[in-house]
Amino acid sequence: MLRNALSKASLGRSVSGRLASASGRHAPGGSKRLASQLVEPKQPEVVTDEIPGPQSKAALSRLGLLQDTRAVVFAGDYQKSVGNYIVDADGNYLLDLHCQIASIPVGYNNAALLKAAQSPEMASTLANRPALGMYPSKDWGSTLEQAYMRVKPKGLDMVFTTAHGSDANELAYKAAFMYYAKTRRGGTEGFSAQEMSSVMDNVPPGAPDVAILSFTAGFHGRTFGALSTTRSKAIHKLDIPAFRWPRAPFPQLRYPLDKYSEENAAEESRCLAETERILHDNPMPIAAIVIEPVQSEGGDRHASPRFFQELRSITKQHDVLMIVDEVQTGCGATGTFWAHEQWALETPPDMVTFSKKMQTAGFYHTREMVPDQPYRNFNTWLGDPSRALMTRAIVDEVLERKLVEQARDTGAYLKSHLEPLAIRYFRVFNSVRGEGTFLAFDCTSAELRTELLHLMRMEGVNMGGSGDVAVRFRPMLTLTKAHVNVFITRFESVLNKLYQKHWPR
Amino acid sequence: MLRNALSKASLGRSVSGRLASASGRHAPGGSKRLASQLVEPKQPEVVTDEIPGPQSKAALSRLGLLQDTRAVVFAGDYQKSVGNYIVDADGNYLLDLHCQIASIPVGYNNAALLKAAQSPEMASTLANRPALGMYPSKDWGSTLEQAYMRVKPKGLDMVFTTAHGSDANELAYKAAFMYYAKTRRGGTEGFSAQEMSSVMDNVPPGAPDVAILSFTAGFHGRTFGALSTTRSKAIHKLDIPAFRWPRAPFPQLRYPLDKYSEENAAEESRCLAETERILHDNPMPIAAIVIEPVQSEGGDRHASPRFFQELRSITKQHDVLMIVDEVQTGCGATGTFWAHEQWALETPPDMVTFSKKMQTAGFYHTREMVPDQPYRNFNTWLGDPSRALMTRAIVDEVLERKLVEQARDTGAYLKSHLEPLAIRYFRVFNSVRGEGTFLAFDCTSAELRTELLHLMRMEGVNMGGSGDVAVRFRPMLTLTKAHVNVFITRFESVLNKLYQKHWPR
Repeated sequence: MLRNALSKASLGRSVSGRLASASGRHAPGGSKRLASQLVEPKQPEVVTDEIPGPQSKAALSRLGLLQDTRAVVFAGDYQKSVGNYIVDADGNYLLDLHCQIASIPVGYNNAALLKAAQSPEMASTLANRPALGMYPSKDWGSTLEQAYMRVKPKGLDMVFTTAHGSDANELAYKAAFMYYAKTRRGGTEGFSAQEMSSVMDNVPPGAPDVAILSFTAGFHGRTFGALSTTRSKAIHKLDIPAFRWPRAPFPQLRYPLDKYSEENAAEESRCLAETERILHDNPMPIAAIVIEPVQSEGGDRHASPRFFQELRSITKQHDVLMIVDEVQTGCGATGTFWAHEQWALETPPDMVTFSKKMQTAGFYHTREMVPDQPYRNFNTWLGDPSRALMTRAIVDEVLERKLVEQARDTGAYLKSHLEPLAIRYFRVFNSVRGEGTFLAFDCTSAELRTELLHLMRMEGVNMGGSGDVAVRFRPMLTLTKAHVNVFITRFESVLNKLYQKHWPR
Repeated sequence: MLRNALSKASLGRSVSGRLASASGRHAPGGSKRLASQLVEPKQPEVVTDEIPGPQSKAALSRLGLLQDTRAVVFAGDYQKSVGNYIVDADGNYLLDLHCQIASIPVGYNNAALLKAAQSPEMASTLANRPALGMYPSKDWGSTLEQAYMRVKPKGLDMVFTTAHGSDANELAYKAAFMYYAKTRRGGTEGFSAQEMSSVMDNVPPGAPDVAILSFTAGFHGRTFGALSTTRSKAIHKLDIPAFRWPRAPFPQLRYPLDKYSEENAAEESRCLAETERILHDNPMPIAAIVIEPVQSEGGDRHASPRFFQELRSITKQHDVLMIVDEVQTGCGATGTFWAHEQWALETPPDMVTFSKKMQTAGFYHTREMVPDQPYRNFNTWLGDPSRALMTRAIVDEVLERKLVEQARDTGAYLKSHLEPLAIRYFRVFNSVRGEGTFLAFDCTSAELRTELLHLMRMEGVNMGGSGDVAVRFRPMLTLTKAHVNVFITRFESVLNKLYQKHWPR
């Protein structure tokens, strides 16, 4: 029984009101209310003694016969979820700061998104899924312009669309390998007979030993090429063959930054020097580096703009491409549409990959990254135009409602509240960090993190971890200061509970 | 000027009628007619002197600024496409036997699919995309049952959903590698310290040297793991690093089968013996084999049920898993829902992968293929529930309208017409083969194939090639004998033109 009188009282609603919502009659509006007319509750509401509750458990026991459900937190009720609140199968209303692993951009049942979902154009793309590389719709160019090109990273004028973050990275790696081979061949894709035959046996020179350099604790996906660059956790990689590609150290900064500025600068210099050494000495040649602006799955690890600026210089000096993986950081949460904008690079990255909040995946690139011959970087669907229409609606919302700016402001407000709490409750957490609402802190142990995430969920706030001990904030761009206030109240309550339990006076 | 009086006359419509259709007023119904009320034309209609025509070209020149369009055949008008007919941006109505690279199952603007696309449930899954492994909708189990389990291959009771055929195969490979390592470890996923540390460096024992065995001319996708098993064409693989996985020979059968039965049996035995030798001798241990029931992209290469039965025995004897790649063959076109049903195996394959006509991807498997620990075979989205709702509608259509049976009948009718033509026009094509409508023939040269496909398109029939010289039939399951008659008339006309040009009397 984790719920207590305090949290019940703080709900500001009667028990009967909560039961009403659990049975589908959440105020305002009856059960027949259209999803687009739902209204966000003022605060979370937890009506079961545990999460997952009985209805979630019933749904999962059925699902468990067909799929692995061991990572499931609860079963969602997406007809009722609204704005920043996710509703589960038992009618619990949780302020969602995890957002489907950082992939909900503008709120559940967003009216503009529902409108896009119900358009005749959407019905057509759902019923008539084209092979976009062979028979694109006559409108596909226009969709690309509106969905992707309005927010393109500076200097990258083309976009390769695909299904998810992992294959977005792999397609970028393939482009890098083809570019690398072409330049080494003197700017030609005229293949030798030996290349043509050896490649069918998966051996050089046709299938060359060339590498993508990634960074300690980086995460770039789970398909075989992407997984070879993922370095966050052993459990993702064990028993799976991997390319013998190298890894460079990523800075391990200390917080607060102003206190450790010298140490952190030295740490970044050490990592840059080691990266340079690997680019110079690695026995397998390196075609590209891949790096996240914030290592997300690996524990919300940051580096300074200076680090990335110097890294860009190093890639230029060593003639390797730079791929920036913005799968999790892209689409505004860091306070700029793309996180790498904050580095103010002199020359843009060669490729920028995206997915998650964009709801479709792909990579931006220059024309140089297009192979001389067709069908080399290709697949049947090249993404999904239905999801691209959702991307277009999302980009509309983000730009029209100035949600990137909102994330910047709301994030600063949230951070300003977290920092003093980190001092007051130092036995529980520290190292508050990040930009915009793309924030995180470290718990003092993995066990405490588990306890904290559980207590927060029972207080009505759904959060996720990253790395070994970090808690990451991955709210929607629609988060407001009012939501932050709701969060802080509950967070303080949980911190007090943890102190009472572990460090009673 | 490829169009001639004969083909114009055969259209059975006035010039003004064709112009009317080009401007969007295709009979029956005006431009305001709902997509679900479109009616198939009786026959193709080509109104431009070339394909792509001027409107397609205009659309592509705009699109070409943003994406590689060199493989594009024409720009589609999917608001007007109907049933077995694809309409292009210029208003050409083409009988579609290519179907978005074999991925349209039940016709353009199918009324049942449009209805599913316009449901409130669909709008919810589009606007609220869940991370299915963490926060599935409470209805996800029910969707899985209706979309996938009603047509599950015998013996495989679970389904892992994902985005496309390439990652469906990779997820199956990962499951195979984890299963392999677990059994070699004595049935445990208790990892050694050496495994835990070595895997972060991408080296054994944590990242072991283990292989998937694939077959000459097989195609399994283009991400790095799948591409290492793809052996169809060098152009797909050149310059891309590959795992040093082996390949076994796939039978090269001769046609007609009854004439070459002894030779073909010997060829299959040779391939089986060589496969067995590789499983025994390969320096890198082999966790699984992957094979297509019909090698599709590789040139529509077939083998007999006996070959696959013996292959299954061999995998059992050598304790390796058997993955059947039904990405292109699945969903009914071969005359059974899954092509491998025709082998009548004593023990089912360990995994069956799917995509294309299913409109979502994934693999069917037994509970044994689920790792002991969560998060090992995992990703953020695990496919797309919006597309799964389309899969459900497709499966409804296929079962209710008995479309698998229709494909079997229509295919037999088509084959019975192709076989005598192959004798009469032997200078152009031979080796008619296949089951259901999943048919193909070989042209006598690559140049003749190019010419034939072009002429067919100008006659109003859109077809695709596979391998070096094959033409593949990949119609929808809704193809009828009337469509076959339309095709045969145009095919004979093209064959006559080719004879008149190349072998005039």
